[in-house]
Amino acid sequence: MKRIEVIQNILEANETVARRNQQLLNVHRVFAINIMSSPGAGKTSLIQQTLTNLKDRLNIAVIEGDVASTVDAEKVQNNAKAVIQINTRNMPESCSLMAAMLEPALKDIPLDDIDLLLIENVGNLICPSEFALGEHKRIVISSLPEGDDKPIKYPLIFIDANAVIINKMDLLPYVDFDIAAFRRAVAGLNPEAEIFELSCKTGEGIERWRSWILAQVKSNAIK
Amino acid sequence: MKRIEVIQNILEANETVARRNQQLLNVHRVFAINIMSSPGAGKTSLIQQTLTNLKDRLNIAVIEGDVASTVDAEKVQNNAKAVIQINTRNMPESCSLMAAMLEPALKDIPLDDIDLLLIENVGNLICPSEFALGEHKRIVISSLPEGDDKPIKYPLIFIDANAVIINKMDLLPYVDFDIAAFRRAVAGLNPEAEIFELSCKTGEGIERWRSWILAQVKSNAIK
Repeated sequence: MKRIEVIQNILEANETVARRNQQLLNVHRVFAINIMSSPGAGKTSLIQQTLTNLKDRLNIAVIEGDVASTVDAEKVQNNAKAVIQINTRNMPESCSLMAAMLEPALKDIPLDDIDLLLIENVGNLICPSEFALGEHKRIVISSLPEGDDKPIKYPLIFIDANAVIINKMDLLPYVDFDIAAFRRAVAGLNPEAEIFELSCKTGEGIERWRSWILAQVKSNAIK
Repeated sequence: MKRIEVIQNILEANETVARRNQQLLNVHRVFAINIMSSPGAGKTSLIQQTLTNLKDRLNIAVIEGDVASTVDAEKVQNNAKAVIQINTRNMPESCSLMAAMLEPALKDIPLDDIDLLLIENVGNLICPSEFALGEHKRIVISSLPEGDDKPIKYPLIFIDANAVIINKMDLLPYVDFDIAAFRRAVAGLNPEAEIFELSCKTGEGIERWRSWILAQVKSNAIK
Protein backbone atom coordinates (compact mmCIF):
# COMPACT_ATOMS: atom_id res chain seq x y z
CA MET A 1 0.00 0.00 0.00
CA LYS A 2 2.54 2.53 -1.23
CA ARG A 3 -0.10 5.23 -1.65
CA ILE A 4 -1.41 4.93 1.92
CA GLU A 5 2.14 5.44 3.23
CA VAL A 6 2.71 8.48 1.03
CA ILE A 7 -0.61 9.97 2.14
CA GLN A 8 0.29 9.26 5.77
CA ASN A 9 3.61 11.04 5.32
CA ILE A 10 1.92 14.01 3.70
CA LEU A 11 -0.63 14.29 6.51
CA GLU A 12 2.11 14.13 9.15
CA ALA A 13 4.23 16.70 7.33
CA ASN A 14 1.15 18.89 7.06
CA GLU A 15 0.52 18.66 10.83
CA THR A 16 4.09 19.81 11.51
CA VAL A 17 3.76 22.86 9.27
CA ALA A 18 0.28 23.61 10.64
CA ARG A 19 1.68 23.69 14.19
CA ARG A 20 4.45 26.02 13.00
CA ASN A 21 1.88 28.31 11.35
CA GLN A 22 -0.18 28.42 14.53
CA GLN A 23 2.86 29.24 16.66
CA LEU A 24 3.67 32.14 14.32
CA LEU A 25 0.06 33.38 14.53
CA ASN A 26 0.13 33.07 18.33
CA VAL A 27 3.33 35.06 18.63
CA HIS A 28 1.64 37.90 16.78
CA ARG A 29 -1.74 37.38 18.53
CA VAL A 30 -3.52 36.75 15.24
CA PHE A 31 -6.71 34.69 15.50
CA ALA A 32 -7.25 32.53 12.41
CA ILE A 33 -10.44 30.95 11.09
CA ASN A 34 -10.53 28.29 8.35
CA ILE A 35 -13.76 28.70 6.36
CA MET A 36 -14.91 25.63 4.42
CA SER A 37 -17.95 24.79 2.28
CA SER A 38 -19.20 23.46 -1.05
CA PRO A 39 -18.57 25.67 -4.07
CA GLY A 40 -21.00 28.59 -3.99
CA ALA A 41 -22.31 28.15 -0.43
CA GLY A 42 -21.17 31.64 0.52
CA LYS A 43 -17.60 31.65 1.88
CA THR A 44 -16.68 34.86 0.07
CA SER A 45 -20.01 36.50 0.98
CA LEU A 46 -19.48 35.62 4.65
CA ILE A 47 -16.01 37.16 4.51
CA GLN A 48 -17.43 40.30 2.86
CA GLN A 49 -20.14 40.59 5.54
CA THR A 50 -17.62 40.00 8.32
CA LEU A 51 -15.32 42.68 6.89
CA THR A 52 -18.16 45.19 6.50
CA ASN A 53 -19.37 44.60 10.04
CA LEU A 54 -16.03 44.42 11.80
CA LYS A 55 -13.58 46.57 9.86
CA ASP A 56 -13.95 49.37 12.42
CA ARG A 57 -13.33 47.03 15.35
CA LEU A 58 -10.65 44.67 14.01
CA ASN A 59 -7.79 44.66 11.55
CA ILE A 60 -8.58 41.76 9.26
CA ALA A 61 -6.46 39.91 6.71
CA VAL A 62 -7.85 37.42 4.18
CA ILE A 63 -6.27 34.44 2.42
CA GLU A 64 -8.28 33.25 -0.57
CA GLY A 65 -7.83 29.66 -1.72
CA ASP A 66 -9.10 28.72 -5.18
CA VAL A 67 -8.22 26.18 -7.82
CA ALA A 68 -8.00 29.03 -10.33
CA SER A 69 -8.86 32.76 -10.71
CA THR A 70 -8.57 35.81 -8.46
CA VAL A 71 -12.26 36.80 -8.49
CA ASP A 72 -12.71 36.24 -4.76
CA ALA A 73 -9.61 38.20 -3.76
CA GLU A 74 -10.87 41.14 -5.82
CA LYS A 75 -14.25 41.02 -4.06
CA VAL A 76 -12.81 41.34 -0.54
CA GLN A 77 -9.98 43.78 -1.30
CA ASN A 78 -11.69 46.96 -0.11
CA ASN A 79 -12.15 46.32 3.60
CA ALA A 80 -9.23 44.00 4.37
CA LYS A 81 -5.82 45.11 5.62
CA ALA A 82 -4.17 42.46 3.43
CA VAL A 83 -5.42 39.93 0.88
CA ILE A 84 -3.42 37.01 -0.45
CA GLN A 85 -4.69 34.75 -3.25
CA ILE A 86 -3.49 31.14 -3.39
CA ASN A 87 -4.30 29.17 -6.56
CA THR A 88 -3.98 25.42 -6.02
CA ARG A 89 -4.26 24.40 -9.66
CA ASN A 90 -0.64 23.36 -10.10
CA MET A 91 0.04 22.35 -6.51
CA PRO A 92 0.39 18.74 -5.29
CA GLU A 93 -3.10 18.93 -3.77
CA SER A 94 -5.57 21.03 -5.73
CA CYS A 95 -8.74 20.18 -3.79
CA SER A 96 -7.75 21.84 -0.49
CA LEU A 97 -5.42 24.38 1.00
CA MET A 98 -2.52 22.79 2.89
CA ALA A 99 -0.40 24.22 5.72
CA ALA A 100 2.63 24.48 3.44
CA MET A 101 0.69 26.74 1.05
CA LEU A 102 -0.17 29.07 3.93
CA GLU A 103 3.37 29.34 5.27
CA PRO A 104 4.74 31.65 2.54
CA ALA A 105 1.44 33.60 2.46
CA LEU A 106 1.82 34.39 6.18
CA LYS A 107 5.18 35.98 5.43
CA ASP A 108 3.44 38.43 3.09
CA ILE A 109 0.97 39.59 5.75
CA PRO A 110 1.97 42.30 8.30
CA LEU A 111 0.95 40.02 11.20
CA ASP A 112 1.71 42.59 13.91
CA ASP A 113 -1.01 44.82 12.49
CA ILE A 114 -3.61 42.05 12.21
CA ASP A 115 -6.17 40.78 14.76
CA LEU A 116 -8.11 38.33 12.64
CA LEU A 117 -7.14 36.17 9.66
CA LEU A 118 -9.99 34.74 7.59
CA ILE A 119 -8.87 31.83 5.40
CA GLU A 120 -11.22 30.87 2.59
CA ASN A 121 -10.52 27.26 1.70
CA VAL A 122 -11.13 25.67 -1.71
CA GLY A 123 -14.83 24.92 -2.33
CA ASN A 124 -15.03 21.28 -1.29
CA LEU A 125 -16.68 19.28 1.54
CA ILE A 126 -14.15 16.44 1.52
CA CYS A 127 -10.44 17.26 1.10
CA PRO A 128 -10.20 20.33 3.41
CA SER A 129 -11.21 18.24 6.41
CA GLU A 130 -7.91 16.34 6.11
CA PHE A 131 -5.54 19.29 6.25
CA ALA A 132 -5.08 21.52 9.29
CA LEU A 133 -3.64 24.89 8.28
CA GLY A 134 -2.72 26.31 11.68
CA GLU A 135 -6.14 27.88 12.26
CA HIS A 136 -7.72 28.35 15.70
CA LYS A 137 -11.27 27.60 14.61
CA ARG A 138 -12.88 25.70 11.72
CA ILE A 139 -16.16 26.87 10.20
CA VAL A 140 -18.38 24.97 7.76
CA ILE A 141 -21.02 26.81 5.73
CA SER A 142 -24.05 24.94 4.38
CA SER A 143 -26.54 26.83 2.24
CA LEU A 144 -30.26 26.08 2.00
CA PRO A 145 -30.32 25.20 -1.73
CA GLU A 146 -27.78 22.39 -1.13
CA GLY A 147 -30.32 20.45 0.91
CA ASP A 148 -30.41 19.38 4.55
CA ASP A 149 -28.63 16.03 4.03
CA LYS A 150 -25.07 17.34 3.75
CA PRO A 151 -23.98 16.37 7.32
CA ILE A 152 -25.11 12.80 6.60
CA LYS A 153 -23.29 12.64 3.27
CA TYR A 154 -20.09 14.50 4.22
CA PRO A 155 -19.79 13.77 7.95
CA LEU A 156 -16.06 14.34 8.53
CA ILE A 157 -16.02 18.06 7.83
CA PHE A 158 -18.93 18.59 10.25
CA ILE A 159 -17.35 16.45 12.99
CA ASP A 160 -14.33 18.77 13.18
CA ALA A 161 -16.14 22.11 12.87
CA ASN A 162 -16.30 24.61 15.73
CA ALA A 163 -19.23 26.36 14.09
CA VAL A 164 -21.69 25.53 11.33
CA ILE A 165 -23.39 28.31 9.39
CA ILE A 166 -26.69 27.80 7.60
CA ASN A 167 -26.49 30.44 4.89
CA LYS A 168 -29.00 31.77 2.32
CA MET A 169 -31.85 31.82 4.85
CA ASP A 170 -33.56 34.32 2.49
CA LEU A 171 -34.26 31.37 0.15
CA LEU A 172 -36.20 29.38 2.79
CA PRO A 173 -39.60 29.99 1.13
CA TYR A 174 -38.34 28.65 -2.22
CA VAL A 175 -36.39 25.49 -1.37
CA ASP A 176 -36.99 22.26 0.54
CA PHE A 177 -34.77 22.38 3.61
CA ASP A 178 -35.72 21.04 7.02
CA ILE A 179 -33.75 23.18 9.48
CA ALA A 180 -34.63 20.98 12.46
CA ALA A 181 -33.42 17.86 10.61
CA PHE A 182 -30.18 19.60 9.64
CA ARG A 183 -29.60 20.73 13.22
CA ARG A 184 -30.27 17.22 14.51
CA ALA A 185 -27.80 15.74 12.00
CA VAL A 186 -25.08 18.23 13.01
CA ALA A 187 -25.75 17.69 16.72
CA GLY A 188 -25.52 13.92 16.20
CA LEU A 189 -22.04 14.27 14.72
CA ASN A 190 -20.78 17.17 16.79
CA PRO A 191 -22.86 18.35 19.76
CA GLU A 192 -20.35 21.13 20.59
CA ALA A 193 -20.68 22.98 17.28
CA GLU A 194 -22.31 26.41 17.40
CA ILE A 195 -24.96 26.75 14.69
CA PHE A 196 -25.79 30.08 13.04
CA GLU A 197 -28.74 30.74 10.73
CA LEU A 198 -28.08 33.74 8.53
CA SER A 199 -28.23 35.32 5.11
CA CYS A 200 -25.12 37.02 3.79
CA LYS A 201 -27.32 38.61 1.13
CA THR A 202 -29.84 40.33 3.42
CA GLY A 203 -27.67 40.55 6.56
CA GLU A 204 -30.27 38.59 8.57
CA GLY A 205 -28.59 36.84 11.52
CA ILE A 206 -25.19 38.48 10.96
CA GLU A 207 -25.28 40.23 14.35
CA ARG A 208 -24.94 36.99 16.32
CA TRP A 209 -22.07 35.85 14.07
CA ARG A 210 -20.36 39.23 14.54
CA SER A 211 -20.62 38.90 18.35
CA TRP A 212 -19.25 35.36 18.25
CA ILE A 213 -16.22 36.41 16.20
CA LEU A 214 -15.54 39.37 18.48
CA ALA A 215 -15.71 37.14 21.56
CA GLN A 216 -13.33 34.62 19.95
CA VAL A 217 -10.77 37.25 19.00
CA LYS A 218 -11.00 38.83 22.44
CA SER A 219 -10.46 35.55 24.28
CA ASN A 220 -7.44 34.90 22.03
CA ALA A 221 -5.97 38.35 22.73
CA ILE A 222 -6.09 37.94 26.52
CA LYS A 223 -4.69 34.39 26.55
CA MET B 1 8.76 14.13 -5.88
CA LYS B 2 7.64 10.74 -4.63
CA ARG B 3 4.01 11.84 -4.38
CA ILE B 4 3.80 13.05 -7.99
CA GLU B 5 5.02 9.64 -9.16
CA VAL B 6 2.49 7.80 -7.03
CA ILE B 7 -0.30 10.03 -8.33
CA GLN B 8 0.91 9.45 -11.87
CA ASN B 9 0.83 5.69 -11.33
CA ILE B 10 -2.66 5.88 -9.86
CA LEU B 11 -3.95 7.91 -12.79
CA GLU B 12 -2.43 5.49 -15.29
CA ALA B 13 -3.83 2.47 -13.46
CA ASN B 14 -7.20 4.21 -13.38
CA GLU B 15 -7.11 4.76 -17.16
CA THR B 16 -6.46 1.05 -17.72
CA VAL B 17 -9.41 -0.01 -15.57
CA ALA B 18 -11.62 2.71 -17.11
CA ARG B 19 -10.89 1.32 -20.60
CA ARG B 20 -11.74 -2.18 -19.34
CA ASN B 21 -15.02 -0.89 -17.87
CA GLN B 22 -15.93 0.79 -21.15
CA GLN B 23 -15.18 -2.35 -23.15
CA LEU B 24 -17.49 -4.33 -20.87
CA LEU B 25 -20.23 -1.70 -21.25
CA ASN B 26 -19.76 -1.73 -25.05
CA VAL B 27 -20.04 -5.51 -25.26
CA HIS B 28 -23.42 -5.24 -23.54
CA ARG B 29 -24.43 -2.05 -25.44
CA VAL B 30 -24.83 -0.10 -22.22
CA PHE B 31 -24.46 3.67 -22.57
CA ALA B 32 -22.90 5.23 -19.45
CA ILE B 33 -23.04 8.82 -18.23
CA ASN B 34 -20.83 10.21 -15.44
CA ILE B 35 -22.76 12.95 -13.60
CA MET B 36 -20.64 15.42 -11.65
CA SER B 37 -21.39 18.57 -9.61
CA SER B 38 -20.92 20.39 -6.32
CA PRO B 39 -22.73 18.90 -3.33
CA GLY B 40 -26.43 19.71 -3.59
CA ALA B 41 -26.48 20.98 -7.19
CA GLY B 42 -29.02 18.33 -8.20
CA LYS B 43 -27.33 15.13 -9.37
CA THR B 44 -29.85 12.88 -7.62
CA SER B 45 -32.78 15.07 -8.71
CA LEU B 46 -31.60 14.90 -12.33
CA ILE B 47 -31.39 11.11 -12.08
CA GLN B 48 -34.89 10.98 -10.56
CA GLN B 49 -36.28 13.18 -13.36
CA THR B 50 -34.49 11.12 -16.02
CA LEU B 51 -35.86 7.89 -14.55
CA THR B 52 -39.41 9.27 -14.36
CA ASN B 53 -39.28 10.53 -17.94
CA LEU B 54 -37.52 7.59 -19.56
CA LYS B 55 -38.40 4.48 -17.56
CA ASP B 56 -40.95 3.43 -20.20
CA ARG B 57 -38.45 3.88 -23.04
CA LEU B 58 -35.18 2.63 -21.53
CA ASN B 59 -33.97 0.18 -18.95
CA ILE B 60 -31.85 2.26 -16.61
CA ALA B 61 -29.34 1.30 -13.91
CA VAL B 62 -27.89 3.75 -11.39
CA ILE B 63 -24.60 3.76 -9.49
CA GLU B 64 -24.59 6.18 -6.56
CA GLY B 65 -21.25 7.48 -5.31
CA ASP B 66 -21.15 9.13 -1.89
CA VAL B 67 -18.60 9.58 0.86
CA ALA B 68 -21.14 8.15 3.29
CA SER B 69 -24.86 7.20 3.53
CA THR B 70 -27.33 5.50 1.22
CA VAL B 71 -29.91 8.31 1.07
CA ASP B 72 -29.46 8.88 -2.68
CA ALA B 73 -29.74 5.20 -3.58
CA GLU B 74 -32.99 5.03 -1.65
CA LYS B 75 -34.38 8.02 -3.55
CA VAL B 76 -33.85 6.49 -6.99
CA GLN B 77 -34.75 2.89 -6.17
CA ASN B 78 -38.30 2.91 -7.52
CA ASN B 79 -37.79 3.49 -11.23
CA ALA B 80 -34.36 1.97 -11.81
CA LYS B 81 -33.72 -1.62 -12.93
CA ALA B 82 -30.71 -1.81 -10.61
CA VAL B 83 -29.16 0.54 -8.05
CA ILE B 84 -25.69 0.14 -6.55
CA GLN B 85 -24.40 2.39 -3.76
CA ILE B 86 -20.65 2.98 -3.47
CA ASN B 87 -19.41 4.70 -0.30
CA THR B 88 -15.90 6.12 -0.73
CA ARG B 89 -15.28 6.94 2.92
CA ASN B 90 -12.71 4.24 3.53
CA MET B 91 -11.35 3.98 0.02
CA PRO B 92 -7.93 5.31 -1.09
CA GLU B 93 -9.63 8.28 -2.77
CA SER B 94 -12.72 9.56 -0.98
CA CYS B 95 -13.36 12.70 -3.04
CA SER B 96 -14.23 10.95 -6.32
CA LEU B 97 -15.35 7.66 -7.77
CA MET B 98 -12.52 5.78 -9.48
CA ALA B 99 -12.69 3.17 -12.25
CA ALA B 100 -11.64 0.41 -9.84
CA MET B 101 -14.63 1.17 -7.59
CA LEU B 102 -16.96 0.78 -10.57
CA GLU B 103 -15.53 -2.52 -11.75
CA PRO B 104 -17.07 -4.72 -9.02
CA ALA B 105 -20.31 -2.69 -9.16
CA LEU B 106 -20.68 -3.49 -12.87
CA LYS B 107 -20.58 -7.19 -12.00
CA ASP B 108 -23.67 -6.71 -9.82
CA ILE B 109 -25.71 -5.11 -12.62
CA PRO B 110 -27.54 -7.31 -15.19
CA LEU B 111 -25.85 -5.45 -18.07
CA ASP B 112 -27.66 -7.38 -20.80
CA ASP B 113 -30.96 -5.97 -19.57
CA ILE B 114 -29.72 -2.36 -19.34
CA ASP B 115 -29.64 0.42 -21.97
CA LEU B 116 -28.45 3.33 -19.88
CA LEU B 117 -26.21 3.54 -16.81
CA LEU B 118 -26.34 6.78 -14.82
CA ILE B 119 -23.35 7.19 -12.52
CA GLU B 120 -23.70 9.81 -9.78
CA ASN B 121 -20.20 10.86 -8.78
CA VAL B 122 -19.22 12.23 -5.35
CA GLY B 123 -20.27 15.88 -4.90
CA ASN B 124 -17.09 17.69 -5.83
CA LEU B 125 -15.95 19.99 -8.68
CA ILE B 126 -12.27 19.06 -8.48
CA CYS B 127 -11.32 15.40 -7.91
CA PRO B 128 -13.83 13.71 -10.29
CA SER B 129 -12.31 15.48 -13.28
CA GLU B 130 -9.12 13.45 -12.79
CA PHE B 131 -10.65 9.98 -12.88
CA ALA B 132 -12.29 8.45 -15.96
CA LEU B 133 -14.66 5.66 -14.98
CA GLY B 134 -15.35 4.09 -18.36
CA GLU B 135 -18.29 6.39 -19.13
CA HIS B 136 -19.27 7.48 -22.66
CA LYS B 137 -20.29 11.01 -21.71
CA ARG B 138 -19.46 13.39 -18.84
CA ILE B 139 -22.07 15.82 -17.51
CA VAL B 140 -21.51 18.71 -15.10
CA ILE B 141 -24.43 20.28 -13.25
CA SER B 142 -24.22 23.85 -11.99
CA SER B 143 -27.14 25.26 -10.02
CA LEU B 144 -28.17 28.91 -9.93
CA PRO B 145 -27.59 29.48 -6.17
CA GLU B 146 -23.91 28.49 -6.59
CA GLY B 147 -23.26 31.60 -8.69
CA ASP B 148 -22.18 32.06 -12.30
CA ASP B 149 -18.42 32.04 -11.63
CA LYS B 150 -17.96 28.28 -11.21
CA PRO B 151 -16.45 27.66 -14.69
CA ILE B 152 -13.83 30.32 -13.95
CA LYS B 153 -13.00 28.89 -10.54
CA TYR B 154 -13.14 25.16 -11.38
CA PRO B 155 -12.19 25.12 -15.07
CA LEU B 156 -10.96 21.52 -15.51
CA ILE B 157 -14.28 19.80 -14.90
CA PHE B 158 -15.99 22.07 -17.47
CA ILE B 159 -13.26 21.57 -20.07
CA ASP B 160 -13.90 17.82 -20.20
CA ALA B 161 -17.71 17.91 -20.05
CA ASN B 162 -19.88 16.82 -22.98
CA ALA B 163 -22.85 18.65 -21.52
CA VAL B 164 -23.36 21.29 -18.84
CA ILE B 165 -26.68 21.59 -17.05
CA ILE B 166 -27.83 24.81 -15.40
CA ASN B 167 -30.21 23.48 -12.75
CA LYS B 168 -32.65 25.17 -10.34
CA MET B 169 -33.89 27.61 -12.99
CA ASP B 170 -36.98 28.05 -10.78
CA LEU B 171 -34.78 30.08 -8.38
CA LEU B 172 -33.80 32.64 -11.04
CA PRO B 173 -35.96 35.46 -9.56
CA TYR B 174 -34.35 35.04 -6.12
CA VAL B 175 -30.60 34.73 -6.81
CA ASP B 176 -27.94 36.69 -8.67
CA PHE B 177 -26.90 34.58 -11.64
CA ASP B 178 -25.99 35.95 -15.05
CA ILE B 179 -26.88 33.15 -17.48
CA ALA B 180 -25.20 34.86 -20.43
CA ALA B 181 -21.96 35.27 -18.44
CA PHE B 182 -22.06 31.62 -17.37
CA ARG B 183 -22.64 30.48 -20.96
CA ARG B 184 -19.76 32.64 -22.19
CA ALA B 185 -17.44 31.20 -19.54
CA VAL B 186 -18.35 27.61 -20.48
CA ALA B 187 -18.03 28.36 -24.20
CA GLY B 188 -14.61 29.91 -23.58
CA LEU B 189 -13.39 26.69 -21.93
CA ASN B 190 -15.29 24.18 -24.03
CA PRO B 191 -17.16 25.41 -27.11
CA GLU B 192 -18.45 21.89 -27.91
CA ALA B 193 -20.38 21.40 -24.67
CA GLU B 194 -24.16 21.27 -24.96
CA ILE B 195 -25.80 23.55 -22.37
CA PHE B 196 -29.20 22.80 -20.86
CA GLU B 197 -31.23 25.17 -18.69
CA LEU B 198 -33.70 23.29 -16.54
CA SER B 199 -35.32 22.78 -13.17
CA CYS B 200 -35.46 19.28 -11.77
CA LYS B 201 -38.00 20.58 -9.25
CA THR B 202 -40.57 21.96 -11.70
CA GLY B 203 -39.63 19.86 -14.74
CA GLU B 204 -39.01 23.01 -16.82
CA GLY B 205 -36.55 22.22 -19.64
CA ILE B 206 -36.48 18.47 -18.97
CA GLU B 207 -37.94 17.66 -22.41
CA ARG B 208 -34.80 18.79 -24.26
CA TRP B 209 -32.58 16.82 -21.85
CA ARG B 210 -34.78 13.74 -22.34
CA SER B 211 -34.44 14.02 -26.15
CA TRP B 212 -30.68 14.43 -25.89
CA ILE B 213 -30.30 11.31 -23.73
CA LEU B 214 -32.52 9.28 -26.06
CA ALA B 215 -30.49 10.38 -29.09
CA GLN B 216 -27.23 9.46 -27.29
CA VAL B 217 -28.43 6.00 -26.32
CA LYS B 218 -29.79 5.39 -29.80
CA SER B 219 -26.54 6.36 -31.52
CA ASN B 220 -24.69 4.05 -29.13
CA ALA B 221 -27.05 1.13 -29.84
CA ILE B 222 -26.58 1.32 -33.61
CA LYS B 223 -22.78 1.71 -33.50
